[in-house]
Amino acid sequence: MKKVDKAIILLSGGMDSATVLAMASRKYNLIALHFNYHQRTEKKELWCFHQLCQYYNVEKKIIIDLDFFRKIGGSTLLRGIGKVPKPRFRRDKIPSTYVPFRNGIMLSIATAVADRFSARYIFLGAVEADFSGYPDCRYNFIKNFEKAAKVGTKNQNISIVAPLLNLTKSQIVSKGIKLGVPYQYTWSCYNSNDKPCLKCESCLLRLKGFDKAGYRDPLLV
Amino acid sequence: MKKVDKAIILLSGGMDSATVLAMASRKYNLIALHFNYHQRTEKKELWCFHQLCQYYNVEKKIIIDLDFFRKIGGSTLLRGIGKVPKPRFRRDKIPSTYVPFRNGIMLSIATAVADRFSARYIFLGAVEADFSGYPDCRYNFIKNFEKAAKVGTKNQNISIVAPLLNLTKSQIVSKGIKLGVPYQYTWSCYNSNDKPCLKCESCLLRLKGFDKAGYRDPLLV
Repeated sequence: MKKVDKAIILLSGGMDSATVLAMASRKYNLIALHFNYHQRTEKKELWCFHQLCQYYNVEKKIIIDLDFFRKIGGSTLLRGIGKVPKPRFRRDKIPSTYVPFRNGIMLSIATAVADRFSARYIFLGAVEADFSGYPDCRYNFIKNFEKAAKVGTKNQNISIVAPLLNLTKSQIVSKGIKLGVPYQYTWSCYNSNDKPCLKCESCLLRLKGFDKAGYRDPLLV
Repeated sequence: MKKVDKAIILLSGGMDSATVLAMASRKYNLIALHFNYHQRTEKKELWCFHQLCQYYNVEKKIIIDLDFFRKIGGSTLLRGIGKVPKPRFRRDKIPSTYVPFRNGIMLSIATAVADRFSARYIFLGAVEADFSGYPDCRYNFIKNFEKAAKVGTKNQNISIVAPLLNLTKSQIVSKGIKLGVPYQYTWSCYNSNDKPCLKCESCLLRLKGFDKAGYRDPLLV
């Protein structure tokens, strides 16, 4: 199939956005956007980003440094702010890893890039079903943001596509394996060691996802 | 009056945001946010920002560097991209000074700061009436963005206040003069010389505003 339309993809280097990349790359010419917001695991994530872009022949890569997240602060995901928290799996309280309005900021930059390069779609790997309590990962947020992006841009026709929003981690793994996603080029752990720690909340979610889907995580082979 | 609530103000150093500052400073403890996006006039604007914050006893100043605007490009307002355009005063076409989704990006960062510091309000000096065709300066955009900010944050109660939205430049000047705004600490010109050029679209709008309101611009004295 000849690809005509352009799309932006927010590609962190985690397994969710890698799965979305596999889906979007079949239909669209892609501009991949990666954000360095001085999260602890940026080095790992950036390496995965480059590997994934190469694997999927991404047309254009844009890496954006968001140094100001450190100025705003307020999240244990950022380097130099406390320790990686222990797993909680509670949905009644927003966890300390919440980075204030991170998806709002990333989507607004993606919207600017889409407006600049006349791209029709913005893909992102937000997940609501398994979400760990982040308010900016919800359908309600994404839909309202999309309305603002439509009326606030030159092109007036930007759509935000979040195809994993209602999937569980194991459904994402199943879908990704079928699409041939190279999960060895993804990083989920909140720490930045050679191998995943298998103790943080993000590792445990990933473990459970592969386990329930009946596959082995290539990172653990 | 004792100030209890906190508010964020987007303070560029132009006359609109200075007028909003005068209004907001009467009721709220303010965090002033200034963005350096490598616009031609940043040096002038930053100087105005500091003068205005001092004049109004702003509690906290945050200056955020948005280096990535240059990576995205697409506006003649940015340094190194073409010349400052000649005045057009046409509303049927978006002008070359449009910076893709600039207000969207700035508002999303302001939302993060508001969420982090538990501020209830975000003030901005967007003007629709005299607007030069920027899609992200319209009521429709601001209202939709506010909805996204409400549902996408921890605090869930952020309101965006744009008190100049329906005013003309001369109405803004009248209001500001009554409030005692020190307009000598504001900069509107698209160029960055000692004195305003009085030839660019922004200068002509300001000239007309002071003229119609019946006041002299202190910058021209």
